[in-house]
Amino acid sequence: LQAATADSGIPAAGAEVAFQFLHSELVSFLLREQLQGGGGGPATVQQCRAQLSKLETMGFQVGQAYVEKMTKDLPRFRDDLEIVKFLCKDFWASLFKKQVDNLKTNHQGVYVIIDEKFSLLVPMARGKQYLDRCHLYTAFPCGLIRGALTNLGLRAIVTAEVEELPRVKFQIQLVQHST
Amino acid sequence: LQAATADSGIPAAGAEVAFQFLHSELVSFLLREQLQGGGGGPATVQQCRAQLSKLETMGFQVGQAYVEKMTKDLPRFRDDLEIVKFLCKDFWASLFKKQVDNLKTNHQGVYVIIDEKFSLLVPMARGKQYLDRCHLYTAFPCGLIRGALTNLGLRAIVTAEVEELPRVKFQIQLVQHST
Repeated sequence: LQAATADSGIPAAGAEVAFQFLHSELVSFLLREQLQGGGGGPATVQQCRAQLSKLETMGFQVGQAYVEKMTKDLPRFRDDLEIVKFLCKDFWASLFKKQVDNLKTNHQGVYVIIDEKFSLLVPMARGKQYLDRCHLYTAFPCGLIRGALTNLGLRAIVTAEVEELPRVKFQIQLVQHST
Repeated sequence: LQAATADSGIPAAGAEVAFQFLHSELVSFLLREQLQGGGGGPATVQQCRAQLSKLETMGFQVGQAYVEKMTKDLPRFRDDLEIVKFLCKDFWASLFKKQVDNLKTNHQGVYVIIDEKFSLLVPMARGKQYLDRCHLYTAFPCGLIRGALTNLGLRAIVTAEVEELPRVKFQIQLVQHST
């Protein structure tokens, strides 16, 4: 095998694109599973919930592991806001090649993040039919965010709203520690 | 939200790590599904095959889409060897942050690729128990390679051998076109 071609001039698609495609493939896979299991009819609420939960769990695990790797040599964050800002800037940039477009907070534990062109939704933005599909495409990123926050010491409920692909609004509701 | 922190000095874990974690999570997920479906006993050959086939298909789809994106503005490759070299260098580097360690060919359509530290196996290299698990962890990358080659016009059978994690040997057997 010849020497490296770091200078080959071939544009690297970038692993974040592979991550995108793999997520998209995972959603399609679970959709197919759901359709096969449902005898061809529309999915029941229970079936939707089960698939959502699987995706959310996978997102959670990936988010936890990834943030662990990103932050292991960093000093501790000062407060919740600093953690959420880290999520919106460094975490987002590293995974999605852009930062979020907007972050709002009520300063009482609720944060709203808007990404106008969320990369995990881009492969799906072509097919409107996904909009009806039980929010299967936002379950993984919600888990991803929840996992990242959990690893940084914040318990949270994370939900997503999509009105028009690929724009997404995530809402993070911090859960106060009982200690 | 404050300005970008491209100079924040925080080491980016890199999306290829997220890709790694997501693959690892996908394998764990299918393992869990298999164990739940199998009533706790060892998986049957049919169950193993079904899970392998799901992973291989997902890899195939991702490989196809990814190479499509990587090569859409490139001139056509001259021959099979050039395609395989592209796979070993640019494709590998873009997804796994390294090139393959060794490429051999018999010049009759068989290529053997060795990666001494294959990144998709790194998260699994800690747990020896995975070695017995129906090769679940190599099915996706075999599909990935097959998908990449297919998109570049080469039909192939791709198999993998792992003697010691995370070292892997992929064998590519090109299938001659019947035209």
